[in-house]
Amino acid sequence: MRDAYHDELDGISHKLVEMTRLVRSAMDRATTALLDADARLAEEVISGDKAINKIDLEIEETVFDLMARQQPVAGDLRTLITSLRMSADLERMGDLAAHLAKTARRRHPESCVPPELQPTVLQMGQIAVRLVAKAGSVIASQDVAMGLELDSDDDAMDKLHRKLFDVLLSPKWKHGVEKAVDITLAGRYYERFADHAVHVAGDVVYMVTGQRPEDIIDEFS
Amino acid sequence: MRDAYHDELDGISHKLVEMTRLVRSAMDRATTALLDADARLAEEVISGDKAINKIDLEIEETVFDLMARQQPVAGDLRTLITSLRMSADLERMGDLAAHLAKTARRRHPESCVPPELQPTVLQMGQIAVRLVAKAGSVIASQDVAMGLELDSDDDAMDKLHRKLFDVLLSPKWKHGVEKAVDITLAGRYYERFADHAVHVAGDVVYMVTGQRPEDIIDEFS
Repeated sequence: MRDAYHDELDGISHKLVEMTRLVRSAMDRATTALLDADARLAEEVISGDKAINKIDLEIEETVFDLMARQQPVAGDLRTLITSLRMSADLERMGDLAAHLAKTARRRHPESCVPPELQPTVLQMGQIAVRLVAKAGSVIASQDVAMGLELDSDDDAMDKLHRKLFDVLLSPKWKHGVEKAVDITLAGRYYERFADHAVHVAGDVVYMVTGQRPEDIIDEFS
Repeated sequence: MRDAYHDELDGISHKLVEMTRLVRSAMDRATTALLDADARLAEEVISGDKAINKIDLEIEETVFDLMARQQPVAGDLRTLITSLRMSADLERMGDLAAHLAKTARRRHPESCVPPELQPTVLQMGQIAVRLVAKAGSVIASQDVAMGLELDSDDDAMDKLHRKLFDVLLSPKWKHGVEKAVDITLAGRYYERFADHAVHVAGDVVYMVTGQRPEDIIDEFS
């Protein structure tokens, strides 16, 4: 009985890793769709979001079912509750990738990213993709040290987000209000996406150690 | 023993209602701060967010503690898990009110809301405040019918959000990129705030009925 139970826990973990893979791919394509004004790619991301939502619901059902049947305590209970949270964060990250794709679709055939911002948006997309890939690796490996790294990895995103606003608000901005609105929203989506990835990794740290990342980092500093 | 346990469940519910009260007040002040460029009010909202975060952590601790000690099943388990979610949503709503306040503070002594948008932003603030007040009432009363109303109440917010963009993107917009960026972000904060309020009410519906709001609404339509 306990073995079947731990198989089910492993199943949840595999589904979470699968979600990070789908979300990574969605973010990757959404950034390309945004930069290249590629409507086909954008549609793929938007319609692909359903598959991510589906896994989220499956995980939720399994967790509720396990809780009701097995009445887990301590570590196992923590694993189940943090799994629910991670799943919700990843589901939201899928939504944010879809928001980016919708921004791309709305302006098609034009790109909403002017040339001088293309490298910044490209980098934001790359960091977002790396963060979620790393979060997936942290879930699979339960590597606490790697999980703790994401918080500082996210600093690079915040820096690029500020850079975006610097360009947008400089007197040299020549692309009008519509593009400024698009970029403002896109910047916000990337930044939130990265925050959620940091949360996912932090939840793994909490799951394994019973301590929040901020408490562990405080101990070392 | 069971009575002390249900007292603790009631305690969680009271804390959630208290959170809705604090969040409502924060949102109310943040909107005024934004419209009137009132830096003092903005500071109040920003520093007041700590109190909201504190309750969120307290609820989390109590839930984990109850789960470990009492091994609740079925309805009680659902109550505990949805309480965690509602608390997380309300905590996030406090953050969004603080984001609005920071936007107000950044542009002080100017208001970032131009005159032609003041009525729209005022209305968005009022709807946000009503939504969270209603969510609080739904938590306290466990009134499923009222809980189901929030989803359509939120339509008014979406309408105003679209109106904001119409004004922003019209050729008549004379307030430049900086104000457009501020309004874009503020609009997004209001819209997300309303979404979270709808989630909170939906979680009460789920807690009481064991069904998601969308499934119940489907049955009636």
